[in-house]
This record gives sequence, structure tokens and C-alpha cells, in this order.
Amino acid sequence: MNHKVVIPNAFTLANLLLGILSLVYTMDGNFRLAAVMILLSMVLDGMDGKVARKLDVASPFGKELDSLSDLVSFGVAPAILVYAAQMYEPYGIVGLIIALIFALCGAVRLARFNILNISTHFLGIPITVAGPLMAIFTLVSDHLPTLFFPVSMLLLAGFMISNIKIPKI
Amino acid sequence: MNHKVVIPNAFTLANLLLGILSLVYTMDGNFRLAAVMILLSMVLDGMDGKVARKLDVASPFGKELDSLSDLVSFGVAPAILVYAAQMYEPYGIVGLIIALIFALCGAVRLARFNILNISTHFLGIPITVAGPLMAIFTLVSDHLPTLFFPVSMLLLAGFMISNIKIPKI
Repeated sequence: MNHKVVIPNAFTLANLLLGILSLVYTMDGNFRLAAVMILLSMVLDGMDGKVARKLDVASPFGKELDSLSDLVSFGVAPAILVYAAQMYEPYGIVGLIIALIFALCGAVRLARFNILNISTHFLGIPITVAGPLMAIFTLVSDHLPTLFFPVSMLLLAGFMISNIKIPKI
Repeated sequence: MNHKVVIPNAFTLANLLLGILSLVYTMDGNFRLAAVMILLSMVLDGMDGKVARKLDVASPFGKELDSLSDLVSFGVAPAILVYAAQMYEPYGIVGLIIALIFALCGAVRLARFNILNISTHFLGIPITVAGPLMAIFTLVSDHLPTLFFPVSMLLLAGFMISNIKIPKI
């Protein structure tokens, strides 16, 4: 086994770790730090694939681990954060349902994209974009109307499972 | 497309949904309900694969979705639950690190098992056993010493990434 394979996977596990820490910060009511964890995850997530290709150690294991981490950091963590910080009040159960839809659509997108094996473009908005966007919205929530959160969350959920082609940068 | 394929995937998404609800209940301090959600997830998780094979619609998409749901319901949700309910007091940051190790080992196990494609036995304790066990321990925590939680969580984490062969029932 090439021991260099450990390096990108360490980035991926750090991505998952930050996603779980985001959940812990949300639980503590520290919403700004919870959002920052999601954004830091995004930075790490952009690095693991690049590092793996650079070291020539891209692996199916790494790809699986990446998807698993992405669902937590960019699906579940933002859903729980936005529900707790922006939608629990005033939307209650409706806010929870919208947050659940967001996370579930994220999972469907990850599972679908993983088996399609398309490398030229994205199909639907990637969860790695949708999740961090919701985190950024939370950071600037003072400047946004309350209704912005359920609407943007539902739109992003729909775009994630849509067939829109998005070029890879 | 065979429309029957939707049925097992609906079970899998319900599994994920219960995992996220477990996180929400933990956040609300309702630890018993959070544990029950994990156990209900386990019931659904046992059904999706069986239904898929019975209907002859087992798919790579379903398998991916199953792994993603399993990490949330049996890795992240039990980690956060046990941290909040049993380890935040008295272990603080050490308790958090142990919970993180449990979730990370769960992710490694899922990614590894997915690419190995072994169908005759499990390699290491499945996350679908480790997570529900921690939920059961939480439900009977009044009868357990405090030290039981960090010790059992670390042991299960280690067993998940171990090479112990476990026969499929």
C-alpha cells in the first residue's frame, strides 16, 4: 500500500470532523462558529481531491469517504444550523420539514452523482456549494428577511436533485 | 426505469430522516427520544435491503444512499447523543474527542466495506450494530457506571475498523 494515500484521506476525515463540530456548536447555540466550521470544511473538501490527484493516490475508498463526509458537513450540518438559528422561530415544524428536505435532497444528489461517474460537469448544484451557501446566509442573516431562509433552502434542495448541467471549474 | 426501485430507497431516506430527527431531539435535550429514533432507523435499515432484493431492484444508487444514511443514523447521531447525554458531563473535551473518534471510525468502516464488496461476512463490527448499541446503552444509562460510555464507545470504534470477521445472519 502506498502510504501517501493517507494524506488526502486525512483531509477528508478532517472535513467530516469539522461537520460534526458544526453540529456541536449549533447544539451549544454558537451559530456563527457552526457556520464557520462548514466553510472550513469546504476549504478542506476542495483540497483532498486535488492532493489525491497530485500524489496520484486517488482511490475508490477516498471517493466513498468524501461522499460520506460531504453529507454530514454540507447536508446535515447546514440543515440543523439553519433550522436552529433561523427557522425554529418562527416556522417551527414547517422549518424542520424544509431542513429535512434539504438534507435528504443532498443525500440523493451525492448517491446519484457517485454512480453516474461524470467527470466533465456537475449534474445539479453540488451539495458542496449548497451547504456552504446556507452557512454564508446564516452569517449575514441580520441583513436578510426571515423568509429568505426557507425559500433559499427549498430552492437549493430542488437544484441539487435537478438535471441542470454545471461546468466544473 | 422500474418504479418499484423507489420503495427500498424510500425506506433508506426514512432511515436518514430518523437519524436527523435524533440529532434534533438531542439538541432539545430529549435524549430518550433521540435514542429511540436511532433504534427505529435500525429497523428501517434492516428492511431496505431485504425489500430491494425481494422486488429485485437492488441498485448501486440504493447502496450509496444506504451508506450515506447509515453514517448519519448510526455514526453521527449516536456520537452526538452519547456526548451530550453521557459524556459532556463529566468528560468535557475528552468526551467530545471520543465521540468524534467513534463517528470517524464509522465513516472509515462504511467506506472500506463499500469498496471491498464482500457479501459472505462482515469485516469489523458493522456501524449498524455499533450505533444502535450506543443508543441502547443510553436508554439504560441509569444502571451503568459513567465510565462505561467512553470505554464502550472507544471499543466499538476500534472494532468497527478492525479485521474481525463476523458472519452475516
